[in-house]
Amino acid sequence: MLYSIHFDVIVVGGGHAGTEAALVAARMGQKTLLITHNFETLGQLSCNPSIGGIGKSHLVREIDALGGAMALAADCAGIQFRVLNSSKGPAVRATRAQIDRVLYRQAIRFQLENQENLSLFQQQVDELVIEQGRIAGVRTQGGVEFRSSAVVLTAGTFLDGKIFVGLNSYSGGRSGDVPAIALSDCLKELNLPQGRLKTGTPPRIDGRTIDFSVMKKQLGDFDPIPVFSLRGNASMHPEQLPCWITNTNIETHDIIRSGLDRSPLFTGIIEGIGPRYCPSIEDKIHRFSDRNSHQIFLEPEGLKTHEYYPNGISTSLPFDIQIKLVQSISGLENAHILRPGYAIEYDFFDPRCLKSSLETRQIEGLFFAGQINGTTGYEEAAAQGLLAGINAARYVSGEAAWIPKRSEAYLGVMVDDLVTQGVNEPYRMFTSRAEYRLSLREDNADMRLTETGYKMGCVSEEQWIAFEKKRENIAREMERMKSTWIHPSMLPVKEAERVIGKEIEREYCLADLLKRPDVSYDSLASLTSVSGGNWRTEKELDKQVREQVEIQIKYAGYIERQTREVRRQQYYENLRLPANMDYSEVNALSIEVRQKLDKQKPETLGQASRISGVTPAAISLLLIYLKKQGLVDFAETHE
Amino acid sequence: MLYSIHFDVIVVGGGHAGTEAALVAARMGQKTLLITHNFETLGQLSCNPSIGGIGKSHLVREIDALGGAMALAADCAGIQFRVLNSSKGPAVRATRAQIDRVLYRQAIRFQLENQENLSLFQQQVDELVIEQGRIAGVRTQGGVEFRSSAVVLTAGTFLDGKIFVGLNSYSGGRSGDVPAIALSDCLKELNLPQGRLKTGTPPRIDGRTIDFSVMKKQLGDFDPIPVFSLRGNASMHPEQLPCWITNTNIETHDIIRSGLDRSPLFTGIIEGIGPRYCPSIEDKIHRFSDRNSHQIFLEPEGLKTHEYYPNGISTSLPFDIQIKLVQSISGLENAHILRPGYAIEYDFFDPRCLKSSLETRQIEGLFFAGQINGTTGYEEAAAQGLLAGINAARYVSGEAAWIPKRSEAYLGVMVDDLVTQGVNEPYRMFTSRAEYRLSLREDNADMRLTETGYKMGCVSEEQWIAFEKKRENIAREMERMKSTWIHPSMLPVKEAERVIGKEIEREYCLADLLKRPDVSYDSLASLTSVSGGNWRTEKELDKQVREQVEIQIKYAGYIERQTREVRRQQYYENLRLPANMDYSEVNALSIEVRQKLDKQKPETLGQASRISGVTPAAISLLLIYLKKQGLVDFAETHE
Ligand SMILES: Cc1cc2nc3c(=O)[nH]c(=O)nc-3n(C[C@H](O)[C@H](O)[C@H](O)COP(=O)(O)OP(=O)(O)OC[C@H]3O[C@@H](n4cnc5c(N)ncnc54)[C@H](O)[C@@H]3O)c2cc1C
Ligand SMILES: Cc1cc2nc3c(=O)[nH]c(=O)nc-3n(C[C@H](O)[C@H](O)[C@H](O)COP(=O)(O)OP(=O)(O)OC[C@H]3O[C@@H](n4cnc5c(N)ncnc54)[C@H](O)[C@@H]3O)c2cc1C
Repeated sequence: MLYSIHFDVIVVGGGHAGTEAALVAARMGQKTLLITHNFETLGQLSCNPSIGGIGKSHLVREIDALGGAMALAADCAGIQFRVLNSSKGPAVRATRAQIDRVLYRQAIRFQLENQENLSLFQQQVDELVIEQGRIAGVRTQGGVEFRSSAVVLTAGTFLDGKIFVGLNSYSGGRSGDVPAIALSDCLKELNLPQGRLKTGTPPRIDGRTIDFSVMKKQLGDFDPIPVFSLRGNASMHPEQLPCWITNTNIETHDIIRSGLDRSPLFTGIIEGIGPRYCPSIEDKIHRFSDRNSHQIFLEPEGLKTHEYYPNGISTSLPFDIQIKLVQSISGLENAHILRPGYAIEYDFFDPRCLKSSLETRQIEGLFFAGQINGTTGYEEAAAQGLLAGINAARYVSGEAAWIPKRSEAYLGVMVDDLVTQGVNEPYRMFTSRAEYRLSLREDNADMRLTETGYKMGCVSEEQWIAFEKKRENIAREMERMKSTWIHPSMLPVKEAERVIGKEIEREYCLADLLKRPDVSYDSLASLTSVSGGNWRTEKELDKQVREQVEIQIKYAGYIERQTREVRRQQYYENLRLPANMDYSEVNALSIEVRQKLDKQKPETLGQASRISGVTPAAISLLLIYLKKQGLVDFAETHE
Repeated sequence: MLYSIHFDVIVVGGGHAGTEAALVAARMGQKTLLITHNFETLGQLSCNPSIGGIGKSHLVREIDALGGAMALAADCAGIQFRVLNSSKGPAVRATRAQIDRVLYRQAIRFQLENQENLSLFQQQVDELVIEQGRIAGVRTQGGVEFRSSAVVLTAGTFLDGKIFVGLNSYSGGRSGDVPAIALSDCLKELNLPQGRLKTGTPPRIDGRTIDFSVMKKQLGDFDPIPVFSLRGNASMHPEQLPCWITNTNIETHDIIRSGLDRSPLFTGIIEGIGPRYCPSIEDKIHRFSDRNSHQIFLEPEGLKTHEYYPNGISTSLPFDIQIKLVQSISGLENAHILRPGYAIEYDFFDPRCLKSSLETRQIEGLFFAGQINGTTGYEEAAAQGLLAGINAARYVSGEAAWIPKRSEAYLGVMVDDLVTQGVNEPYRMFTSRAEYRLSLREDNADMRLTETGYKMGCVSEEQWIAFEKKRENIAREMERMKSTWIHPSMLPVKEAERVIGKEIEREYCLADLLKRPDVSYDSLASLTSVSGGNWRTEKELDKQVREQVEIQIKYAGYIERQTREVRRQQYYENLRLPANMDYSEVNALSIEVRQKLDKQKPETLGQASRISGVTPAAISLLLIYLKKQGLVDFAETHE
């Protein structure tokens, strides 16, 4: 049957990608429908009970800066918050939260159910409806056809999902959930370039059978308590819990080796490639055979459950080996496994078949986001979902896609990496993937993106007002720091030594003093003798404002240098390569490079430069050609 | 692989039957394992968000009296409590609670995770392991074999579950959940008498699209606030919400009729028989074709969701008809359906292949409980689960099965109905099924069962102490009521008129006065002139105690008569029919009756008497035969 209402945007899948996509399309005013297998799994964390961490937290903040759901839900569901790398430079600092699964699902569902313009529908989607090369809607298992102008597909690990425990395997989208087989078949008929990837998860342990007394306790940060969302605060956090640290040992490793002949990975039963940076314990033992021990974090899965997640022993070894390996670890001698670890293999689509907007090149109006694009991780999925949702909304209203630049956001880095380089293994975010990571900090995600988001309609008025106030406070305080001069005569020797380390020999503005390595904003603010200005009130400025001012002043030199570099790169970055470009006309280009360019059809010179095998020399040849042909046209990136 | 630990009892399935079975076996000290598809669905309410109601609430109180989980979980998750039939006699009064699904799952999982002797394991069970006619354990989808002395199977609607919406159908255990197909196949190989049943559920509606202003509001009871568990109290209840009442109309009925040609029920696609007392709306329209309207209750599904359950329009009509029928109802003109209604067809087993202990006759140590025995309803399932769990535990420790009598508990009525009469349609509980319903009240479930439960080890010390105190208070107060005499001279005319309606002409004890139709315990207690005894303190006796005293005194005559009747019946009831009894030797028994008895092998004369077609005359013949053969042996029912 045909559903009588025509939607602007349909999102398939209620995981991390799907929920952000649906929420943002609806926020942008599009009549949106989210269809998913089961409402009870909306916002489900398939694997680790945590959000954020290095590289990933940057994505979370960017999602938040664009009005997304993940950070706020983490604030409502986080049972331990920490800032990683807090002693290192601000570029690599990262927030991480342990998450209560039940509270997280509740927080996400709450946002979904209360979003204007958004309707929900529970059922499996079995088919895409495509008419004349354009998406027209979807058809469900129950035979209902929903029509729409755009569709965002976010099926996660569910497409023809296969679960492996030892040599045993069966179909499933996730342990306990149905796989999406009909949809996988339907997608295969479309002949999109496709492959198989795999990921894995550790066994879960009954906390009542863990001896915590022999483990190291790890508490969250308490002073200050980290907060994920710009709209959040520490009072939203529920009760906080510790994590516990133990280790694998030689016996553990021997047990693992004894099971490799029945490992689906090592016997070649699993064809899909797993995430190198999130390896199974058997992979780790194999690759780092000289190490006798790996750290294991026992992470609580929630406030009302005894279930623990042993971070570090993801495995698809046979269950008998899983039991032995777990019980060989100190403190887990009597551990009862509640759910076995397993690997899952699933369909993904070569992201090089996507435009930077995450629209498929082949089918107009069809967007892909999340795990099906070859990524791994909740944050990566959510960030893509947000972007796909934004661009689906813009597509529907006839606006050009928004393509965040590599210099602007991790979101830009990720999407550019995906669409230009494709993936050989599940892609996860690292700060090292960003050339401009000094500018792409967690702390300034809003400065980078909120204005754009507001203009696009994905940031609420409330968030915008709060942001503007913050931005203004920062600007005013920056100005005051630069225009407040401290003369040596104003500074008693003792005060100078206390705060600056030594006497000052001439007049300095506060900003100059702050640049000194041992001087912090807060120590400067403690100067009793500095009048001229309402320091007292400024001192009470929001922590976020003080932090911004300090970072902007202290790192100004580096950041400026990087900004110049970004500008120079930008020139090439946005130089457009015509869609119908005939690379055989470009003189002196090697056949190999020509083939690669023909195949991948990069949209800009910047993208072309990141295709492996496309040399700087080739880029120069292309540049010369474009100039000669009068094709110097720059892609507009929406700002 | 073989799991190294041997369990006493394994329970398969984490629905209402499975959770009670696992909890009670563990409470009774047996090393118990609960295996289920998915921990996230532990305690899931598949259909209506409510617990209790007429007949059903009696089961809930009995479960509670035996230390079970359901009532306490309902107290923690109930968002509206009402006493139905409160103006009628105490036998048919029934408590009913609307339930927040999330809180209910949480409460059940909390009890499971904190139960000593109980381990949990998430995975699908694919096979039963049977050795020499005895159960030996189960094998999971992941290839793990768990061994045990007893197994309780509670697979609900999952065995080869098939979901129907219109002419469309697909496999599923419940919308969004996997079906259990391998286990269904395995059971088929055992050749247990088996069939198909069906049940259905209404579409769910987005509360944001409902116009409540045209509906009638229904609030819960507030004075007093009902409480389900003897261990519960009103302060456990979360926030309370109203329900809303609307109606179907002629247009609705026309729409439904227009869809019957595509109804899986009316076109014969569904073979399974549905519950007559919980019919689909299409059934109701068809059967009561003269009615122009049926009442619909819009019940909230929880505190944090807008989802509503429209009680009264369960349907498996095509989705286009579902939309039209919903939108034809006053207040639902713009309703958005979140999840379509559907019917589900599933395997069940003829309960006549069970002993009264719920052990299968064919396979020793294998117990069946819940929906797979042909019942419908959470309460029916939970009560059977409890009984099967108790008897599995007793089986393991070599004790005789506990078989509650029909005169003792609804649990006894239900199990006796099932094992002697089998089912033609999903069986649900009604007060009318109980011959002794005056004795089997909600209010005295603990008086009937808690002592037995305590002796069997399924009632905690804490519950026992509270119960004993209550029982003692009742006894003491009964005594005082009988021994406190009121002389006319002690009672001023005005007081007598206010409380008793007229002057008393001679001395009466308080109990006698209470028997008068218009006198209540509380009004008697308000007599200012009655000294002699510490009425003042007694007045403050627990509400439950006052209620008991009042009911026991007021209904004493009826109850005594019923008790005598019960005793008389009991004689035949427990007269044992030998397992190897040769009915061809019983003179004058008709061939038909002989065949029936041969086939069903009743355990007692009472059971034989309830097999349809077995006449009172036949029972007399059997009695004579038994006496002549010196076979007068009475089944011990554990007390
Ligand atoms: C076993 C396992 C281990 C993992 N290990 C890690 C790890 O170690 N590290 C890490 O970073 N990440 C890991 N992940 C990945 C992480 O869970 C995903 O990256 C993330 O959940 C992807 O989000 P998503 O929105 O793309 O998809 P998902 O979260 O998978 O959500 C997909 C949603 O779509 C729905 N759906 C799918 N098909 C249909 C359909 N046809 N019709 C209707 N609804 C549909 C599903 O029901 C589900 O709600 C693991 C995942 C699994 C399953
Ligand atoms: C669509 C629908 C409509 C219904 N309508 C009504 C109604 O109108 N009125 C009414 O009173 N009742 C209704 N019911 C019935 C009610 O839900 C059941 O009576 C009750 O839930 C039965 O409890 P149970 O414990 O027997 O099974 P369930 O609650 O079905 O639980 C079965 C459990 O076993 C697990 N399981 C099954 N097979 C396996 C396996 N092989 N391995 C591991 N785990 C397994 C499942 O995952 C599940 O957790 C309806 C049910 C459904 C599905």
